[in-house]
Amino acid sequence: MNLEGLKFSKMHGLGNDYVVIDESKEELIAENEKTDFSIEVCTKGFSIGADGVIFITPSSGEGEEKGDIRFRIFNADGSEAEMCGNGIRCFSKFIYDYNIIKKDIIKVETLGGIKTVEITAENGLSKLFRVDMGLSTFKTKNIPMIAEVDEFLEKDLIVNGEAIAMTTVNVGNPHAVIFTENTEDIDLDNYGPAIENHEAFPERINVHFVEIISKNEIVMLTWERGAGYTHACGTGATSCVLAGNKLGVLDNKVLVHLPGGDLEIEVYEKENELGAFMKGDAKLVFNGEMI
Amino acid sequence: MNLEGLKFSKMHGLGNDYVVIDESKEELIAENEKTDFSIEVCTKGFSIGADGVIFITPSSGEGEEKGDIRFRIFNADGSEAEMCGNGIRCFSKFIYDYNIIKKDIIKVETLGGIKTVEITAENGLSKLFRVDMGLSTFKTKNIPMIAEVDEFLEKDLIVNGEAIAMTTVNVGNPHAVIFTENTEDIDLDNYGPAIENHEAFPERINVHFVEIISKNEIVMLTWERGAGYTHACGTGATSCVLAGNKLGVLDNKVLVHLPGGDLEIEVYEKENELGAFMKGDAKLVFNGEMI
Repeated sequence: MNLEGLKFSKMHGLGNDYVVIDESKEELIAENEKTDFSIEVCTKGFSIGADGVIFITPSSGEGEEKGDIRFRIFNADGSEAEMCGNGIRCFSKFIYDYNIIKKDIIKVETLGGIKTVEITAENGLSKLFRVDMGLSTFKTKNIPMIAEVDEFLEKDLIVNGEAIAMTTVNVGNPHAVIFTENTEDIDLDNYGPAIENHEAFPERINVHFVEIISKNEIVMLTWERGAGYTHACGTGATSCVLAGNKLGVLDNKVLVHLPGGDLEIEVYEKENELGAFMKGDAKLVFNGEMI
Repeated sequence: MNLEGLKFSKMHGLGNDYVVIDESKEELIAENEKTDFSIEVCTKGFSIGADGVIFITPSSGEGEEKGDIRFRIFNADGSEAEMCGNGIRCFSKFIYDYNIIKKDIIKVETLGGIKTVEITAENGLSKLFRVDMGLSTFKTKNIPMIAEVDEFLEKDLIVNGEAIAMTTVNVGNPHAVIFTENTEDIDLDNYGPAIENHEAFPERINVHFVEIISKNEIVMLTWERGAGYTHACGTGATSCVLAGNKLGVLDNKVLVHLPGGDLEIEVYEKENELGAFMKGDAKLVFNGEMI
């Protein structure tokens, strides 16, 4: 693919990094080339190297589906994702700081529906981004999890002969949350894959170990489904706070320390389900032009 | 470190990638900050992400130590390396294509001494780079290798109870070369660490499996000391051809297929030792400016 002269930016949210292509004015990568383009530019060593590609495009929706702008995100394997918490914060910073849309509240069209992003800015530059992560479910049938209970809340699962107490929750993807004394002592390479691939989880599961500092502050360590150790997982942070709130050990507003940085998760209740807002930052690293 | 406005280029040689900082006109990163700078910008996710940083600076040498220009390379851990085959090809392409020095033969000052690079160009752009990799030794005491023979040439080493025939050579760093029927069948994750850390190698060793296509063409698979599988190892390719040439199974000029691309290795004899030229390409990927 000849990319000579193509301009892009590189951004990250808690260390998850993205190539950002501004197509708000004109399409730069043809629709049928976006997959191959994403695979190529994300390749470490031979190209830019990133976890994914974000395309900024005009909203295509109508009526209630119409946003101020549209967020599209492709993974490094070329597949298009519905949504991405770290990605949409990067997207929002780009459109705000580069004056594509200079508003404090932006309605963003995504494959996962319209998302509202609230922006905190200082001196014309955006600093923090608050995104509604939507509603969750604790029903084992919706995790999905093979279990004899309706909800798996701080119950023991036998992992390689050892009973481990955990809570499972689905926030669009499945998570197992394990509260522990100290995340530094966790043998993640041992427990991570054993729980991820446990027979109780037919679609496998993301695994999080959580240390409670106070009712408003936790430290977490993540084993991501299909990826292993990662320094940031936005849906994971959301899941941990939802689980702790459901169990009554965490308040509604919790500061989460991930290896890649901090997020603030705020739990709300709607239609008898728990949902959450995620607030965090995003960084512009450099502007680039392909040779 | 505030890097706002800093201009750089990103390049790669067979998938080993480098941030290139042009200090040929003026110093951009202070001497005492080059280590921290390299650690920071090489960090994947949070910054540019690369295997190392190349600084292009005026030659500091005198007399025979004086080059046309000076090549400095820092690893991602901030340490300065003596030389790097993939890196010096990238360096040479940058200074040729950006008209810093437009000559077909460039004398480059490196921490490993003056290196002569021969450049093949087309329409004013450089294509191939031929670098003298220097002399090698097969003496076991210089590998270093604990063995009862003076040179370990196609001899059996017992690895986890299995006899594996190999040849060891040092080209500035130590290599074990194993000729095999088919590199695709090799269980690298098993044999790599077992040989790298074998008690016969007090400083550990790089491990290469080599399939001979003809006396002028080989395919190689590398387990790099301290790094595991890598898609390109310039000193490794050199070692494999030197070993095959020494054993009489390869000619003087051999095309080497590595997972990251091709290199041509040309063996010469000097002072009763074997040395080699390495010829390969290098790619400019993008120009960038830190935000």
